[in-house]
Amino acid sequence: MFVLASASKARQKLLDQIALRHKVIVSDFDETQLQEPDPILKVKLLAKGKADSALKKLIEENHALNTYQALLGCDSLFEFKGEIFEKPINKEQLISRWKRMSGQSGFLHTGHYLISLDNSKSDMESISQNNSCEGVVSTKIEFMNLSNFEINKYASTSEPYNCAGGFAIEGNGGLFIKKIDGCFSNVIGLSLPWLKNNLEKYGLSRLLLDR
Amino acid sequence: MFVLASASKARQKLLDQIALRHKVIVSDFDETQLQEPDPILKVKLLAKGKADSALKKLIEENHALNTYQALLGCDSLFEFKGEIFEKPINKEQLISRWKRMSGQSGFLHTGHYLISLDNSKSDMESISQNNSCEGVVSTKIEFMNLSNFEINKYASTSEPYNCAGGFAIEGNGGLFIKKIDGCFSNVIGLSLPWLKNNLEKYGLSRLLLDR
Repeated sequence: MFVLASASKARQKLLDQIALRHKVIVSDFDETQLQEPDPILKVKLLAKGKADSALKKLIEENHALNTYQALLGCDSLFEFKGEIFEKPINKEQLISRWKRMSGQSGFLHTGHYLISLDNSKSDMESISQNNSCEGVVSTKIEFMNLSNFEINKYASTSEPYNCAGGFAIEGNGGLFIKKIDGCFSNVIGLSLPWLKNNLEKYGLSRLLLDR
Repeated sequence: MFVLASASKARQKLLDQIALRHKVIVSDFDETQLQEPDPILKVKLLAKGKADSALKKLIEENHALNTYQALLGCDSLFEFKGEIFEKPINKEQLISRWKRMSGQSGFLHTGHYLISLDNSKSDMESISQNNSCEGVVSTKIEFMNLSNFEINKYASTSEPYNCAGGFAIEGNGGLFIKKIDGCFSNVIGLSLPWLKNNLEKYGLSRLLLDR
């Protein structure tokens, strides 16, 4: 079984999409404690923080660790002209961001931290250091020109408030994204090709497409 | 109400995604009659053929045409090194294509033919000529390197046989697509930004995000 250290429904759907059976363990890592201005470093540290926290929970709550093969922590943010856009805090901020984003482009960065638990006989506490790999995948996103009416209409739905950058490409936000350059699933919350490559590294490809 | 002239579940889901209420009318246009070697011209002609056929059905079957505002026909194909890849005809063809596609790139072309029915008081037969617009959107797709084992595993699922090119980016195929350059929804079957721009042209933006 695979462990996803994220409450994000979008990430869970991506794993369902590739038939990767998984258990969700929501980490209690306090994201607000991290003040890191560099977007790439920030998603990397948050992904590791979430993965380590979920691993700790797994160790504390479960004594049959050999039923789990791998654990993944992820975190996404949107970088717009050097600024970090995480989930919008309110409607006002969302609207003001979209007025700037209209017709412009930015980067969706997702940090990934994968821990292999397969065949591990070692001390669980050292697993994260010795059997893990990390990576940040970045996708360029180019927005359509939007009218104020459209921005307000979108801002009155619940969708954008749950998403880094304030849009869901797999939802209504798909209307507003002219093009992307890079990995598509990365924009939704985790890069499936990155996951495939790194599961392979640990000999865990069998977990994929396992219907 | 919007009319989609396509039986594709993927296209219907895209319209659901942007809350565009629609009725599906599957055209009886015979695609095999069209022998056109140019991929761009081919999807354009097929989209128009499907739209016109569905419009004809709508006119024949329905006398309350004023309940419909627009009708869209679409057709997609994958262009790989100058060759046209439509839906694979069998497992052998699919596997042989994927062996060539592995690590390479190609273009997913979708032809769109949109007919505005809004406020039309004119002779219905002439609507398609006078109130329509067409466009082909192309997205570059770069595939991962795949092992024969992975190709065979994918070929033993039903997914790829229903898709132009033999892959669904929104399904298991998402694992195998390293990156795309262009419109994302176009790869699934119709370009939402293209649709948005062209509905606006006819003053039909109100149909979008209409929950």
